[in-house]
Amino acid sequence: MTEIKENLLDWLRDAHAMEQQAEQMLKAQAGRIDHYPKLKARIEEHIQETVGQRERLEQCISNLGGSPSIVKDALGKMAAMGQAIGGMTASDEIVKGAMAGYVFECFEIASYTSLIAAARTAGEHEVAQVCGEILVQEEAMAAWLLENLPEVTEEFLVRDATPGVTAKK
Amino acid sequence: MTEIKENLLDWLRDAHAMEQQAEQMLKAQAGRIDHYPKLKARIEEHIQETVGQRERLEQCISNLGGSPSIVKDALGKMAAMGQAIGGMTASDEIVKGAMAGYVFECFEIASYTSLIAAARTAGEHEVAQVCGEILVQEEAMAAWLLENLPEVTEEFLVRDATPGVTAKK
Repeated sequence: MTEIKENLLDWLRDAHAMEQQAEQMLKAQAGRIDHYPKLKARIEEHIQETVGQRERLEQCISNLGGSPSIVKDALGKMAAMGQAIGGMTASDEIVKGAMAGYVFECFEIASYTSLIAAARTAGEHEVAQVCGEILVQEEAMAAWLLENLPEVTEEFLVRDATPGVTAKK
Repeated sequence: MTEIKENLLDWLRDAHAMEQQAEQMLKAQAGRIDHYPKLKARIEEHIQETVGQRERLEQCISNLGGSPSIVKDALGKMAAMGQAIGGMTASDEIVKGAMAGYVFECFEIASYTSLIAAARTAGEHEVAQVCGEILVQEEAMAAWLLENLPEVTEEFLVRDATPGVTAKK
């Protein structure tokens, strides 16, 4: 195997670990939301997409002769990032969580943008095609989260300023 | 001070800590790049913008009667994220670094998008104006990094596959 294909396979494994982490984060997030149903529904929709993305990556890795089980230290790094930006215990959890969700989507966008270039450089056009299709889903989720962030922020602030109303999540 | 203004001030302090961390990360990154001059130049340009952004946030915080010195635990969280996604010791450091730079910009975009909504809700239109101007700079940097990520990826792969050529940074 060439150096280029080795790098491509490494990065596909990173992306696979990233999608595993995404699924965990999204499930934890959706499960905790009580008062923001629109955000919860969009996250639940994206969990389904995320599962499909992971399966498609497994197929790409397998087609290149690799195995997705070797996740290197990527999963640990992602877990650290999740903790760092998740802010699950913050009083403004819903706002921090929506921000963290958007940031994680951007991480995925960067990963697939780089993977598409790598797959093309390696001459693996089917991998480039799959990553391009996943990228469209990540871009849609990122755009939705950013568009709805002002509304979530305002709703949190108004709830938080109203006595007897829960705002946190 | 109302609850809404207290939240706004808290978030401005978070943004201030974020810009301090951004300055550190960008300086460390630019200082390590040897073979990718275009990326290095754009990062150095953004360091200047970042310093200006931090100063403008200090002014906003001061105008609201706060002090930027209380950074809570935000700085620690940012440091953790920086370590998690920085990947400074990775063999593909330049690619991971460019991705991390983009992701950090997206974190800043989310922060200012939320801050603008918060400032408007609090009736602090000057703060909203300042955050809107900073947001434009962050969006430009994010767009540049994402646009140039395929080129950085391909350049890294080609260098890495060439005997006797350094690719890492």
